[in-house]
Amino acid sequence: MEADLVIIGAGSGGYEAGIYAYRRKMRTVLVELSPESVGGNCLNKGCIPSKYMRHGAHILDKLEIGERWGIKPKGIDLDYGSLRRGRDEVVVTIRENFKKFAQQINLPIIYGRGVIKDPNTVFVEGAEVTIKTKFILLATGSRPVAVGDLVPDGRYVVDTDQIWDIDFIPKKILIVGGGAVGVEFAYIFKKYGSEVVLVELKRRVLPSDDIPEDSARYLGRKLKQLGVDIRTKTTVESWEKTSEGIKAKLSDGTEVEADFILLAVGRKPNTKGIGLEEIGVELDERGFVKVNELSQTSVPNIYACGDITSPLMLAHKAMYEGKIAVNHMLGGTDWKRDDRIVPKIIYSAFEVASVGLTEEQAEDEDYEVLVGVTSFVTNPKAMDDGENEGFVRIVADEETGKILGCHIVGPNAGELIHQVVHMMRDHKDVEFASKTMYSHPSLSEAIGQSASEIYYGPITWVKR
Amino acid sequence: MEADLVIIGAGSGGYEAGIYAYRRKMRTVLVELSPESVGGNCLNKGCIPSKYMRHGAHILDKLEIGERWGIKPKGIDLDYGSLRRGRDEVVVTIRENFKKFAQQINLPIIYGRGVIKDPNTVFVEGAEVTIKTKFILLATGSRPVAVGDLVPDGRYVVDTDQIWDIDFIPKKILIVGGGAVGVEFAYIFKKYGSEVVLVELKRRVLPSDDIPEDSARYLGRKLKQLGVDIRTKTTVESWEKTSEGIKAKLSDGTEVEADFILLAVGRKPNTKGIGLEEIGVELDERGFVKVNELSQTSVPNIYACGDITSPLMLAHKAMYEGKIAVNHMLGGTDWKRDDRIVPKIIYSAFEVASVGLTEEQAEDEDYEVLVGVTSFVTNPKAMDDGENEGFVRIVADEETGKILGCHIVGPNAGELIHQVVHMMRDHKDVEFASKTMYSHPSLSEAIGQSASEIYYGPITWVKR
Repeated sequence: MEADLVIIGAGSGGYEAGIYAYRRKMRTVLVELSPESVGGNCLNKGCIPSKYMRHGAHILDKLEIGERWGIKPKGIDLDYGSLRRGRDEVVVTIRENFKKFAQQINLPIIYGRGVIKDPNTVFVEGAEVTIKTKFILLATGSRPVAVGDLVPDGRYVVDTDQIWDIDFIPKKILIVGGGAVGVEFAYIFKKYGSEVVLVELKRRVLPSDDIPEDSARYLGRKLKQLGVDIRTKTTVESWEKTSEGIKAKLSDGTEVEADFILLAVGRKPNTKGIGLEEIGVELDERGFVKVNELSQTSVPNIYACGDITSPLMLAHKAMYEGKIAVNHMLGGTDWKRDDRIVPKIIYSAFEVASVGLTEEQAEDEDYEVLVGVTSFVTNPKAMDDGENEGFVRIVADEETGKILGCHIVGPNAGELIHQVVHMMRDHKDVEFASKTMYSHPSLSEAIGQSASEIYYGPITWVKR
Repeated sequence: MEADLVIIGAGSGGYEAGIYAYRRKMRTVLVELSPESVGGNCLNKGCIPSKYMRHGAHILDKLEIGERWGIKPKGIDLDYGSLRRGRDEVVVTIRENFKKFAQQINLPIIYGRGVIKDPNTVFVEGAEVTIKTKFILLATGSRPVAVGDLVPDGRYVVDTDQIWDIDFIPKKILIVGGGAVGVEFAYIFKKYGSEVVLVELKRRVLPSDDIPEDSARYLGRKLKQLGVDIRTKTTVESWEKTSEGIKAKLSDGTEVEADFILLAVGRKPNTKGIGLEEIGVELDERGFVKVNELSQTSVPNIYACGDITSPLMLAHKAMYEGKIAVNHMLGGTDWKRDDRIVPKIIYSAFEVASVGLTEEQAEDEDYEVLVGVTSFVTNPKAMDDGENEGFVRIVADEETGKILGCHIVGPNAGELIHQVVHMMRDHKDVEFASKTMYSHPSLSEAIGQSASEIYYGPITWVKR
């Protein structure tokens, strides 16, 4: 079999790159482990099913204040089985749409393990097919890591690949890890009726440096208000099985009993067993594939995208890198990675969105920093929707007014942030953001107001 | 009393201009009829309370499919009194915030009718205060019009100023006018249990040329699905009171009985009795104040903004024009009106958002037009949220790729459209919109996909 491009892995990155390569008229072959894993982690065990469940939690939040709109349920039954069915139906529909579409455009998917034999040859184990190709794109993704004696077994210690098979709402759950996945499931399970203990090694939830202190704290406070028992600077020292589930000793000296532990402590890249060492694709000291800003590895005709290239494991980063790779294969050199304009979004009790630098990061880079903040508390659209919590925070360079970063907590943060992604990509300043006509009432107005806080100087806006 | 600027009318336009003038260090005085009318039509009898009620309808829509998320209410009581209380509380809170804030920054509001005595003198009837001023900004807004013998009385024929006082959910309502307000209330009352007949003179709902056929039709179909009885090309020929409410004869030969008629056929500018004729401020043939692109009237130191300047009666247009006026008073000539980048948003069974040209308008301007459409049906975030209806439609110039317009129907259309407002303001092309990194999953991805449909040429995306 011959191709211009073989893509190993049909997750978000690989799949999107495949469609893009089709658009750009490359003869492309996708290699994926099985028909059930098309779409990869994001679709099957990650962002898609979790966003689904999170939306249910959000509806429950809204129902609690439904009386404000004259909506008074006489009582609500929660049915985890229905939730799971709805969720899995969405996942399967998207997966089947993917496959149907690939078929429509004659983009072949070969099922099996893709192994690189030489820079121009991929052998697919299982399918037993050899493909000769001009280019290879590695898009093999990542998998959850374990930590210490917290070894996932799918029953007592459940990792983020296994949580989808849990078929009951736990009475009590111990979540280990306060990153994006941890705070997301803490919110979901809390709203669906679980007692939730969330343990985080660092001093706050969302400990990533890319998320500003204010955003992380604001979310943490809300989760606590909802009744999530958050323990920061805390670890699990030991655990044991009980007749009911588990009992864990925490480093704060307390014991927690729960139905099971959800382990959400991170992921590692899938770089083994696909022939990388043998043909000299270089990895960095953490095990990620080294790529340049055109997604090219140390072997010039082999490219990589997504979770295997850096710890910033986001589906859209994978998709973007994959397209940049394809573009470069076809001679394009102008379209490059720019990690500074990657939107980072967490869906928990609030949507928490970030792009670009935090205030601290900007100061570390020796910018004179100006910050403009607008609260959603007094935003009319947010008030109409009963979701007037959170804020828009813009970080700008004092000298030029250039927008360096934006951090949004609150309603629709995950969509609103894109306005600033567009602007930052184009190096826009706060004057630009300030002078756009924002619809009234809209949440988007808060972006213009934050920019105006910087451009015209701060005003004593009504905050409470 | 002396001032740099007197603003007549503290609605959206006047209030925003007042804050802006404060920011720009002008001694400014706001004149408003009464403490209860601060915030104007949008806040008190328009977009803010209607968006509130519309959100309730949206929650009810979501509850009907709640089982997908395992959420099964045992029954729902609807309480119109609670809805009204919640709504009025938001309105009053925003109004009081406005006043409190004006006080904080020492921006005086004088209550009474502002009448221009000469270009540098405003007399406030009621307060009996004379103000000498360098500049005047007219921001007096508009009021509902009546049509034929449909004369609003607040009981049988209710206009959009009076609808807020209705204290029961009508069993049946006859809405006259299928524009933004008509389709909004049709949705609200339908979801809260009314039978709704909607009569529209023209051949479709949302008859404005600024809304493309596809958007209007898509919304119309949805309203019909929900059970709204839409009668286009139809008028009310006569009506009479009955013991229960009203009986109307329609031009299609049928009779409709209802609790009352909601008259939503448009608004006219408030230009009488404020001294405009006397000092020579020119009006156009439709009665709007003539302004140039700097919001300046025919009297050089008198400016106007908002509903009195054109039939495009949008709060944010008023706010924008007001700021442009203030900017010009201070010598700025670079910031001008550009009606092409005014976002227009309707909140009904769907959010319907438009900016820029429709396909038809672009063709009339002799563009070779390319259109890229992406359906929300297969958008993963929309599927997660159970709101996968609608589309993003981008209209571009074939020669340059420049984005000429964007039309979104569906979830969050009213926020999403701002991404394209920013881009169009900066004359961006579809390549730019295509190459931004959109978060996955997000609704925003559909913008990139529509742009890609144009930039790379259409792809047979899975549509159903």
